[in-house]
Order: sequence, then structure tokens, then C-alpha cells
Amino acid sequence: MIRQYSQKEFKEAFIAAKTKKQPFDSDVLQTVKHILDDIRNRGDEAVKEYTKKFDGLAAASLLVSKKERENAWNDVAPEVITALKKAADNIRSFHSKQLQTSRVMEMTDDIVSGQLFRPLERVGIYVPGGKASYPSTVLMNAIPAKLAGVKKIVMTTPARDGKNIPPVLSVAADIAGVDTIYKIGGSQAIGALAYGTEQIEAVDKIVGPGNAYVAAAKSLVFGDVGIDMIAGPSEVAIIVDESAHPPYVAADLIAQAEHDEKARSFLFCTSKALLAKTLEEVKRQCEELPRKDIAEISLANEGAAVLVDTIDEAFSLVNALAPEHLEIQTKNALHHLSKVKNAGSVFIGHHTPEAVGDYFAGPNHVLPTVGTARFSSGLSVDDFIKKTTYVYYSENALRQAAPYVETLAQEEELDGHARAVKVRLEQ
Amino acid sequence: MIRQYSQKEFKEAFIAAKTKKQPFDSDVLQTVKHILDDIRNRGDEAVKEYTKKFDGLAAASLLVSKKERENAWNDVAPEVITALKKAADNIRSFHSKQLQTSRVMEMTDDIVSGQLFRPLERVGIYVPGGKASYPSTVLMNAIPAKLAGVKKIVMTTPARDGKNIPPVLSVAADIAGVDTIYKIGGSQAIGALAYGTEQIEAVDKIVGPGNAYVAAAKSLVFGDVGIDMIAGPSEVAIIVDESAHPPYVAADLIAQAEHDEKARSFLFCTSKALLAKTLEEVKRQCEELPRKDIAEISLANEGAAVLVDTIDEAFSLVNALAPEHLEIQTKNALHHLSKVKNAGSVFIGHHTPEAVGDYFAGPNHVLPTVGTARFSSGLSVDDFIKKTTYVYYSENALRQAAPYVETLAQEEELDGHARAVKVRLEQ
Repeated sequence: MIRQYSQKEFKEAFIAAKTKKQPFDSDVLQTVKHILDDIRNRGDEAVKEYTKKFDGLAAASLLVSKKERENAWNDVAPEVITALKKAADNIRSFHSKQLQTSRVMEMTDDIVSGQLFRPLERVGIYVPGGKASYPSTVLMNAIPAKLAGVKKIVMTTPARDGKNIPPVLSVAADIAGVDTIYKIGGSQAIGALAYGTEQIEAVDKIVGPGNAYVAAAKSLVFGDVGIDMIAGPSEVAIIVDESAHPPYVAADLIAQAEHDEKARSFLFCTSKALLAKTLEEVKRQCEELPRKDIAEISLANEGAAVLVDTIDEAFSLVNALAPEHLEIQTKNALHHLSKVKNAGSVFIGHHTPEAVGDYFAGPNHVLPTVGTARFSSGLSVDDFIKKTTYVYYSENALRQAAPYVETLAQEEELDGHARAVKVRLEQ
Repeated sequence: MIRQYSQKEFKEAFIAAKTKKQPFDSDVLQTVKHILDDIRNRGDEAVKEYTKKFDGLAAASLLVSKKERENAWNDVAPEVITALKKAADNIRSFHSKQLQTSRVMEMTDDIVSGQLFRPLERVGIYVPGGKASYPSTVLMNAIPAKLAGVKKIVMTTPARDGKNIPPVLSVAADIAGVDTIYKIGGSQAIGALAYGTEQIEAVDKIVGPGNAYVAAAKSLVFGDVGIDMIAGPSEVAIIVDESAHPPYVAADLIAQAEHDEKARSFLFCTSKALLAKTLEEVKRQCEELPRKDIAEISLANEGAAVLVDTIDEAFSLVNALAPEHLEIQTKNALHHLSKVKNAGSVFIGHHTPEAVGDYFAGPNHVLPTVGTARFSSGLSVDDFIKKTTYVYYSENALRQAAPYVETLAQEEELDGHARAVKVRLEQ
């Protein structure tokens, strides 16, 4: 069961421990480095070998064919298709309001300056395999890229049981606008996307979640291509007062905990009685949960419940923690939004469980974890845009600027910089 | 002298080699890791030991005092102060137009959603030491942070000759709005900023250039704090046609090359005669340059001149290269801006040498290098902002969404997610 901490304990010991990045296992790094080098040297041949070895798939082409993508639609339940389309509409609507246009900062006869906004050309999306399939990952990563204007979106995901990819991922890819899908998983997928092979064109940026091998591969290819982030364990912090409903709060703590054993559920409560009731309710609801074993380990090892003096104190702890998800289940919940400084995404009020945002409401579910919300943001259209500044000076503008530029260049002992100005004005 | 390449050679061999990230030296990484661990464990004591060892400074406090900062103004030439103030005005004006406000994506009785824009709370700026001082680094890094609303801007730079920091850096810090300055250099500065000590409060993000040790330290602390980027060698690509002036073009190639021996100067020219004249002019101008030795090595080892068939072909090569700086010295230069896909910053026309942007015009000079302009952007106000999404659902909105959320949660085998919705609607 969730352990209780005092405000002081939580502040002094817990936050520092929970906002420290988790280093990669050096064996994993070594293995992945070898695979990446191999793919860089041997291309498709290496990709096929690893795909046969790890996913049991031996095929001449790892591309998901047009036919396969068409057929996938027959293998997905209609209500799932409808739900994916509705979710995609909401995600598209929310993210379309993030679009920005190139800017002009200054425009006179003598000076023109500004910022160009340009989409990335090619983006790769990694979608993990495993027992379950995660079509929401496809929507959340591909839709912002598509809206940004990315020309080619390539998705890779491992084949299941040595055969095809799960049809629901193919359908989600169609809905989100993914151009090409490959049946490749693990670090070999990251290597193929980063460096390209005979069959697979290298991309400019790779996004999407994955296991320790995928994460290590992303960290190693970063710099040669862009990456979104290296995600740590998923987290929720819930701030509640006496107006909250213990069954709702408990359900949300459990929904977080069912992800995996390292997931983190934090509760900050101003009422001792409601805190006790909520913890009882967590116990009760866990009993009926299919993923009970995972959730109970997560709650016991990683969870925390803190009785706080005031809502403000709760926000102070939460801002120090900088959680991936924050729920505010209090009276006048929207009013407290102003107190949020560090969080990935905020869910406001008694009827906004995180699950609504995970799948449906529109905001992205790819969010900063492990305290990185102090300095970084969830996935957005901005992640698929480059900003290039530009400036034009007329001869007259250069003449006005010359004395200052020359003074500063000489101060920095870069005489060639001063000369680049002088040579243009001396004739 | 600059080596000439054919279009084909440049495309096939040169670009791939010049857009590959440069791995850290493992000895440097090891040394830096030790220093960071030491600072994490021993705090100020360790910082002071390293500062004494590497910078020859033994002092009870490493803080630059108010008195020292006031006195610095007497030790900087008035024309330098004026030039810094003028440059700061331009940088402030350009970057202020990047400011964005929090967004509302949807607002009805049932749904409120959007993005909060929040400044980072504390930012650290590293300013390198060495023979020369770089006040422009202070302006370019601190001004966007200040505009973004960062509450505390901390700068560190090593003391010179075991005494004080260069007065011009202190003055630039005052002009740019830096709150606190410490006399700390190298990886120990990065460690102190990332993890905090008794005297130095930890920051949320560290920006600014530095040598191999500083770069390695930034890469190691990344994740615990944010960083701007790991800069590679500085680059310029210059596209010219027959309208260009060889002395201007040559001066700009040399200005780039004088930075250091690894700096890269690339020329793309549609005219064989003008290309030859420009290379002659490079030779001639180099003779008179104070940093001649550095520039000549840089040009010979890292430079490239390519005779191109057309301007479009030049842009195709440049977009593949994704250079840090791009100059367009052609007829109707502004018209060609539309062809730029991948570049850090663009300088347009015959009278806009890169030097104007390095110091004065307003756009930032902290820019992506080594091909990373394919997927990343120069420093801007955005780097000091976090975007937090938020969503409120009423009971009614949740009821409308429930079937879809439940379907998707069940499809992903996360029953607890479906239950978090159900529990709110069943009473």
C-alpha cells in the first residue's frame, strides 16, 4: 500500500530522490552500440538479421505493404475505429492551435529581419511491441508531425509472433497520416531510422517511447538525428481537498500504477479523514483490477501520500517535484491553475481523470518525466519545426552599425570580423 | 588554401563527413565525471579546490561582489560600453518579438483546454575564459532568458590570472540583466550550477559555450538539468553568383576561419571566374590577418569551394549540409530566402556579413552546428519557457467522451484507465 510521508519528509528526502535521472545500464548501452555500428556498416542485411533474431520475422521486405494496410481495417472492431477517429479529431484540433507562421521582426528600407518556421523533412516514430498494442502512441506522435508539415512520416514497430504488426497500429497510422511503416523493433529500428539503409531513408528526428534498449539507442543516435526525450517512469501527482471523492482519486492513483511497477502515484491531501478514506478505497479497487499485481507493487514501492496543511503547500511540493501529470481535484479547481509552475500536463476538476487526456481530450500524452518538467515540455507541433533567423542589411544600415560591430569584434580580438565590415565600406 | 570540390564530390563524400557528430574523448569524460561526482558530494569545498587548482584563485567567496561589479564599469572603454548597449537594444528588440502568451485551445461550459507558458525559474550561463573575453556571449544568452521572465540568472566564468573576471564581462552581465556572477570555470562550474552547493543554488537549465571539458560536463548533467546544445565547430556557407564582390566574400570566409582551426568555411559559386578571384582574395587578405595562422589551417583543412551549375543546386547542397550560418550574396538575394530549408541563421545580400549578426543585428548567435539545423534551432526566448498543457472536463463532457475513452483503454489492456472514467459516472 501507498506509504505516507510528512510534508517535511517528502520535501527533504523524497523529491531529490524522485527527480534524479536514471542512468542507462552499461551492458545495455554496449549491446546497443554494437547493433547501431553494425547497422551503419551493413545496412539492411544487419537489420534483417536482428529482426529475424529478436522478432522471429524473416522476410525479403520489412515494409508493411499497401495491401496489408488496407486489410488491417477489416481486422479492427468498428467501435475502436470510431474511437480512434474521434480521438484523432480532438488531438488535431488541439495541436492545430499550436501552429505558428514565419515572423518578420523588422522591415524597413534598410533592415529586414525575422524567423523562418520550417517543418522537419523526415520524421521517424517508434511504436513499442509487447503483449498489448498502443494505437494512442501512434496518434500522439504522428498528428503533431503531420500538422507541422513534415513531408515524410515513417513508423516502425516490431511484428508480433514473427508475422505482421498489430492491425490496430496500422489503422491508427492511416488515421494519423503516417506515410510508411516498417516491421522493425528495438534498437535496430532506431539505427535504421537514424542512419538509413538501402531500403530505409534516414530521418531527421526520431520520436516515440520504448524499452531500455530503444531508449539507449535514442540517446546514442542523438546529435546525428534529433530525438524527443528519454522518458522515465510515468507519474501522476493529485492535489485534493475535502471536496474530492475518494473513489475517483483512488481510481486515478491506480490507473497510473497499472502502467508498470516503476510508475509513480503521488497524493497531496488537505484532509486527514479523506486521505484515510482514499487509501482504503485504493486497497478495495485494486482487488478487482486485472493488472492488480503490477499496480500493488508500484503503489507500495513508488507511491506517496502526503497530508498537507494547505493547498498552497501542496502546490509548493508539486512544483518542486515537477510531475509528468498533475490532477487538481479541489473546489474551484480551475482557479488553482495559476499556481502551476512545473508540470507536464494538468487535469482540472473532479471529472477530468488523466485517462481522458491519455487518449482523447486533445493535449499530448508524450510528457516530461522525472522532474524534467522544470525545464522541458510535452510533445507539440513545435518539436517538428525548425526556426531559422534571417537578416538583411543595406549598405546604409551597415554603415550605421559599423563602428559598434568593429568595436565589439576588436574587444573580442577577432579582427577578421571587423575587417568583414570594413572591406564593404572602404571603396 | 581552400580545396575545391565538384558538386558530386561535395554531395557524396563531404556532406556525410561534415554532418556527423563528434564523440567526446573518453579521458575527458572520465575526468569530468569524477569532478561532477566530487562536487555533488563535497559541494563548495570541492568547487574551491578545483578553482584554486585550475584558475589559481583561492578566495573565501567566489561571488563577484556588488562592489566589484560597480568598479568594472570604470575599467571598460566608453565606446565598448556604448557598443554593448546598442547591441543589447537590438538583441532585446528582436527577441521580444518571440514572446508568446499562454493559450486557450477550447473554452465552452463543458471543456476548457490550452497551454500555459511559464518561464524557467533559474538559469545558469557559462561564459568561457581564455586569452580573449566574449561579452557578446553574455548578451546572447542572458537577454532571451531575461525577456522570457526567468527569475534568477546566474553567470559563471573563470577568474583571469587568479584574480578577477574580465571587467567587460561584468559590464555585459549588468546590461543583460544577470543577477549573480561567480568566478568559477570549467566542468566544476557546470557541476555547481547543476547540483548546487552551500553557496550556489542549483539552476534548472545551463546555457553557453565552452571547451571540451565544459561540453562533456553539460552532456553528463543533461537530464538532471536542461542544457542548450553541445556546439560543434562554427560554420559558414556562402552562396554567391557573378554579382558578388570577391573581397567581401573572402573576408567572410576568413572571419569564420579565424575562430579556430576546426572552423568551417564553405563557398558555393556559380561563376568559375569569380570563384578563382575569391580564392586569390582569400590568400591576399589572410596575409594581413592577426590570426592568420589559425585561419590558414582552418581554411586548408576544413574549407571547401564548390563550383555549382545553378543557384538552386547550391541550395540543394546547403540544405543537405544544414550549416550554422548561411550567407546569400547574389542578385535579388532576399528572393532566395524561400529556398532555405536547413540553416541556423541566414545573412542576406552583399552588405550583411555574418559579423553583423554575431554581434549586433539582433538574431541570436547561439546556433545549431554540424548538420543539427536539420532538426534544431538557435537559442531563443522559447528555450527559457516551458509549455504545460491543461484540460478541464465537466461531468457532461466526461459522459460524452466516456465510451471512446473506455474503448481505447480496453484496446490497450489498461482496464484501470477505463475504470477511472466509469467510477465517475456510475453513481
